[in-house]
Amino acid sequence: MQEQVAVGIDIGGTNTTIGLINARGECLAQESIKTWDYPRVEEFIDRLHAIAREIGGDSIVGVGIGAPTGNSERGTIHASNLPWKGVVPLAALFRSRFCLPVFVMNDAKAAVLGEMTYGAAREMRDFAVVTLGTGLGCGIVLNGEVAYGHDGFAGELGHVIVAPGGRACKCGRRGCLETYVSATGIKRTALELLATEVEDSSLRDIPLASLGSRVIDEAAAQGDPIALETFRRAGETLGLALANLVAVIHPEAIFLQGGAARAGAWFHDAVSRSLDENLLFLYKGKVAVQRSALPAGGIIGASAQVWRAR
Amino acid sequence: MQEQVAVGIDIGGTNTTIGLINARGECLAQESIKTWDYPRVEEFIDRLHAIAREIGGDSIVGVGIGAPTGNSERGTIHASNLPWKGVVPLAALFRSRFCLPVFVMNDAKAAVLGEMTYGAAREMRDFAVVTLGTGLGCGIVLNGEVAYGHDGFAGELGHVIVAPGGRACKCGRRGCLETYVSATGIKRTALELLATEVEDSSLRDIPLASLGSRVIDEAAAQGDPIALETFRRAGETLGLALANLVAVIHPEAIFLQGGAARAGAWFHDAVSRSLDENLLFLYKGKVAVQRSALPAGGIIGASAQVWRAR
Repeated sequence: MQEQVAVGIDIGGTNTTIGLINARGECLAQESIKTWDYPRVEEFIDRLHAIAREIGGDSIVGVGIGAPTGNSERGTIHASNLPWKGVVPLAALFRSRFCLPVFVMNDAKAAVLGEMTYGAAREMRDFAVVTLGTGLGCGIVLNGEVAYGHDGFAGELGHVIVAPGGRACKCGRRGCLETYVSATGIKRTALELLATEVEDSSLRDIPLASLGSRVIDEAAAQGDPIALETFRRAGETLGLALANLVAVIHPEAIFLQGGAARAGAWFHDAVSRSLDENLLFLYKGKVAVQRSALPAGGIIGASAQVWRAR
Repeated sequence: MQEQVAVGIDIGGTNTTIGLINARGECLAQESIKTWDYPRVEEFIDRLHAIAREIGGDSIVGVGIGAPTGNSERGTIHASNLPWKGVVPLAALFRSRFCLPVFVMNDAKAAVLGEMTYGAAREMRDFAVVTLGTGLGCGIVLNGEVAYGHDGFAGELGHVIVAPGGRACKCGRRGCLETYVSATGIKRTALELLATEVEDSSLRDIPLASLGSRVIDEAAAQGDPIALETFRRAGETLGLALANLVAVIHPEAIFLQGGAARAGAWFHDAVSRSLDENLLFLYKGKVAVQRSALPAGGIIGASAQVWRAR
């Protein structure tokens, strides 16, 4: 008998990843597509359905989706950084295409589900996961339960205003954390530094469209001063934001997931230093901030919804 | 048979209030003392014991205490704005004096307990209470449960840094929310305005020691420009901080308790305006911020611990 698998889908502002995950949280196959190549959500779903059938055949028992602003109860999304505007009934649309149980969740809450089911948070009752992708997401577990808040939108840490009147955010306001700390925010800081500073930098030779957090990280690894300063600033801002998050929810640990979380020590050291500087004495030495150990956290977390519901 | 009562004690950075509360949350008697009149904690407890015996006689079945940094599990406090330094084993000390069950809780979490047991939050699963006293406290309920966090210190909203490098806080850092929004913070803003502005103000004639949030509120009621601007700034800062809190925990409502919460429309209108301006679109029109309807919220909440444990 073929092993049963769940489809895990992680919808991001840049890439969407789809994978097959078994009940032990092992990723058996995965593939990525560009989210913005599909201006119509029906085409997006058709493409994911075709990939799922191709790699998963008939062994698929359900579909778990993580997406920005994903609302578990309603199965909808309402995101400012995805191609489809307004409230999109994602679960219903996927269900009618896949003819399988479909679960939609906020992407960061899916990441949390992954950490508590298969990751380092298995024994923890109070923790948070911060996802650093195109935007910045946050999933929170308190008293052993995922926090949804009144209407499903707890954890929008990326839209905490850290600089009133600061950088414009796609949400329509200014100074949101994710305009400084996320793959996009890191790119914006690099652009700002390239404009304001005169130092030599390998980033000056890169086509703007290719300038992303990975490229900046590679430059930082070569000692590039603009790249290093970019990550120092991102880390400083994130460290303060995490210190403030700790003061509100007091987690045992905070796990960093997503592309930008894979950056080098220049980023993580700056986060730790800033966190330590800004942490209230009550929490000193009591909160671990660490990179998530789940390699494909997004889709593994998304798939966990399927197994939990069985 | 005499009605059974619980002693509720609300320890604040300025006043400590003690009262007798029955199981329906009705306050039958209360009295206040100045917290800083008792540099030794034993004398403080002796005095409260004497008051309790005097007003409660033999009908007392237990003692519930709310105090800044109160830790429920350990029964301790470790507060920067109380006379007793370091970790104080408050529950054990009260227990040996009262020979009754004693419960210690963070004062803001006690306020939350009051709202969920006797107040407007009886049917709510996700809400917060913000207490505006000498400091600023916050209690959070998510999924119907009080959030304690990993080690009991969730909800230290007063120590979220809102102005890096800003006003010095007794916690040793700078820019904490409570240095701007609390009875003390409001006084500091008034002092700053009296120093920087030249407008006539009745506050200029008041002895500095008497300048507190109530006096400033009375001046605002008379149209005093410095007093009005003081509350406008406090409201603006609190509105932004609450918008950020909403983005993290997404409560259905936020209740304001404590002395400064009794200020007039000049304060509450500024809070609402700033909240509305700074709220992410997802939450618009969905979060009620209101003054608590519990007249003696602090001691009622503290006493609720006793009834819950029976």
